[in-house]
Amino acid sequence: MRHAEVTYRLTSVDASDIDDLASDLLLEQTFETPQEVVNKYVGLAERAGEVHDIRPAANGAVDVTLHLPDDDIQDVAQFVNRIFGNVSIHPNIRLIDFIPSSGLARRFEGPRLGAEGIREAFGFPPRPLTCTALKPVGLSADQLAELCRTFAESGIDIIKDDHYLSDQPTAPFKERIKRCADVAADVSARQGRPIWYVPSVSGSPDEVRRRCEATEDAGLRAVMLAPMTTGLPVLHSVRRDTDLAILTHPSFSPVASIAPKVLWSTLFRMLGADAVIFVNAGGRFDYSVEECRTVAATMMAPVFDLKASLPVPAGGIALDDVPHTIQRYGNDCALLVGGSLLKQKDLGAATRRFVEAVAKNALLAE
Amino acid sequence: MRHAEVTYRLTSVDASDIDDLASDLLLEQTFETPQEVVNKYVGLAERAGEVHDIRPAANGAVDVTLHLPDDDIQDVAQFVNRIFGNVSIHPNIRLIDFIPSSGLARRFEGPRLGAEGIREAFGFPPRPLTCTALKPVGLSADQLAELCRTFAESGIDIIKDDHYLSDQPTAPFKERIKRCADVAADVSARQGRPIWYVPSVSGSPDEVRRRCEATEDAGLRAVMLAPMTTGLPVLHSVRRDTDLAILTHPSFSPVASIAPKVLWSTLFRMLGADAVIFVNAGGRFDYSVEECRTVAATMMAPVFDLKASLPVPAGGIALDDVPHTIQRYGNDCALLVGGSLLKQKDLGAATRRFVEAVAKNALLAE
Repeated sequence: MRHAEVTYRLTSVDASDIDDLASDLLLEQTFETPQEVVNKYVGLAERAGEVHDIRPAANGAVDVTLHLPDDDIQDVAQFVNRIFGNVSIHPNIRLIDFIPSSGLARRFEGPRLGAEGIREAFGFPPRPLTCTALKPVGLSADQLAELCRTFAESGIDIIKDDHYLSDQPTAPFKERIKRCADVAADVSARQGRPIWYVPSVSGSPDEVRRRCEATEDAGLRAVMLAPMTTGLPVLHSVRRDTDLAILTHPSFSPVASIAPKVLWSTLFRMLGADAVIFVNAGGRFDYSVEECRTVAATMMAPVFDLKASLPVPAGGIALDDVPHTIQRYGNDCALLVGGSLLKQKDLGAATRRFVEAVAKNALLAE
Repeated sequence: MRHAEVTYRLTSVDASDIDDLASDLLLEQTFETPQEVVNKYVGLAERAGEVHDIRPAANGAVDVTLHLPDDDIQDVAQFVNRIFGNVSIHPNIRLIDFIPSSGLARRFEGPRLGAEGIREAFGFPPRPLTCTALKPVGLSADQLAELCRTFAESGIDIIKDDHYLSDQPTAPFKERIKRCADVAADVSARQGRPIWYVPSVSGSPDEVRRRCEATEDAGLRAVMLAPMTTGLPVLHSVRRDTDLAILTHPSFSPVASIAPKVLWSTLFRMLGADAVIFVNAGGRFDYSVEECRTVAATMMAPVFDLKASLPVPAGGIALDDVPHTIQRYGNDCALLVGGSLLKQKDLGAATRRFVEAVAKNALLAE
C-alpha cells in the first residue's frame, strides 16, 4: 500500500457538484494546480493519488476519501501539508479519518515505550495507572513540590505539571523540576515503588531542547508536551533526540477542523507520543462516550508495527466517575484526575480515596 | 491595557447556561481548575481575567469575550496556549477575534519589513506587486528554473516556490534555489528592476534554520514558510534569528476552529509575517468578499506599533479577476496568480497579460 488514506467530511455542499469537488480536493492535496497543468508539466501517475470513495453522511454532509501519495514526504511539516494542507482552508471541511501508508508509518518512529513500556516501568500493576496535575499556575516551586509530596505519599503513579506551568518567575523551570524531582525520588525510595514526576516542557524549539536536557539531567524519565503549541515537528524531535517518554497535552487542538482520533490518536502517536491525554465524556467537555472510546481505541489499534500510545482520559473526572471510566477504557490506561482532587479540603485523604477507587474498580483477569 | 481580548463563538449552546459556561471558559484559559482551587491556592486577582461580554450571534450562536492575563506569556507556545488552549478542545467553539495587549504586541516583534518595507524594496510602484508560483512538484530544478526565467522575463516581481516543494530528489533544495536565484539575479540585472525569488522553507526547526541560512547564502531576501506546518514558534524564530523577509503560506490552517483574520492577519503578523498569503473570494475556496476584505484590513490595521503585513490574495485568481481584485484590496498588496498562468499554452504571453492587467487596473492617486 503506497498511498495514505484520508477522509474529509464536507458540510454545506451541493451534492450535484460532489464529484468535481472531490477531484478538486485531490488536486489541492497533490499538485495544487489545475489538471491541465499536471498534464502539461508532470503527468506522473503515481503522484496523482485518487478519489477512492464518496458517500453521504448524516445531516446532508458528504465524506470524501482520498488516496494520497506519500513518496515525497520527508518530514513532519510536509506530512501534515500532504494530509491537510490547502484543504484545511475550507471552513466546511473536517479531517475525520487518516490511515498512514506503511512507508509513512515507518518514516516516523512512533512511541519509544508506548502503553506497554510505560506500564512495564510501573511493574504492570493489575489496574489503570493513576495520574494527577500540579497546579494552578501562580504557586511557587516550593508550593508545587509540597503538592507533589502529598500526591506521591498518597499513592499516585504519575504527577505531571499543569500545561500553564512554563518558566514563570513564580516557579522557574529548573527550580521547579529540581524540587519536584527530589520529592518524587524521596517518596519513591521510601515507598519502594516507581513515581514519575513529569515536567511540562514548552517554549521555542531550542527552549524545548534545553528543558528536555534539564529534565534528563534531573534523572526524570518523561516530559509533557503540548505538540500543537510547540509545533508538531517538535514532538518528533523530542522522540528522536532524547530518551524521554512523552506525555502529550491537547492544548491548541483545532478539533472543529481535525477529529481528535486523527490528531491525538494517530498523528501524536505516529510522531512519538507514549501517552496521550484526551478528554473523557461527562467531564468539562462535551464529548460522547462513543467518541472518547474511539479516541482511546484508535491509539491502541494495530498500525503496522507502531507501538500503542497509552490513553490518559482527563478533563473533569470526579471520584465518583472512576468505576465507569475504568469500565470504558479498561486497565490499559492512566486516569488523570487533577482539579477534582485539588478542590477537596483534605488533599491527601481525597488522593488516597482516588487511588483506592482505582485499585478497587480495576478490571480483574478472570 | 494589561489584558488580551479574545472572542469565542459558541454554537449549539444552551442559552440558559451561558453565564456559567463563560465563567468556565475563563477558568479553562487561566487556572484550569475549579474556582474553589483558585480561591484555596492562589487568589491572584490580576491573573484571573474576566468575562467581558456575552452577546447573541446569528443562528443561535453566542459570542463570549474574555479579558485574559498576559503577564506569564514568555514565548509563542505559551501565547497560543493562553488564547486558545483547552478551549480549543470544544468542537463547538471557534476563536473569532483577538486583540493583543500592548505587552503581548511588544513581546513578539511583528514584521521586520512589513507591507511598506516590501513595497519599498520594489521602489514603491504605483500598483500592486505581482507574484506567482513555481510548480507543480515533480519538476526538476532545471525545469523550475526555466519557469522562473519565463516569469521573470515577463515582468513578475515575486516568484515563489509552491508549498509542496521541499527537498525532494526531483528538485533538491540547494540545487533548486541556486538555479532559481541565479535566474532571478540574471534577469533582474538585465532588466534593471528588483525580482525576488522566494524559496519555500519547510522541515524540522533545525532544517528550517539550515534552509534559511542557505537562502541567505544564495543572496536571496525572503523565504516562504507555512507556520502551521512547521509550528508557529518557528515563524517567530525565523523573524528573530535571520534578516529574511517572511511570506507566510496558509497550509494546515484549521479555519473551522480559528477564524482566518485571527490566525493569518493577527497571529502570523505578530510573529513576524511580512507578507501573508490568503484566499481571495471567488477562487477555489468558498470565502465571501467581505471576509477576505476583513482578513486584508486586519493585517494592515493599527495594532500598537506593529508594522502591517502585506496582503497577498491568492487561491484561484483568473486573469479576468484582476480588476475587481485590485478594487477590493487597493495597491498595497501583491496579487498571487499561479495555476491560472501555468495552464495557459503560452506561459510568457499569459504572464505579460497579467503584469499589464495589474499595471492598467492599478488605483491611481488623484
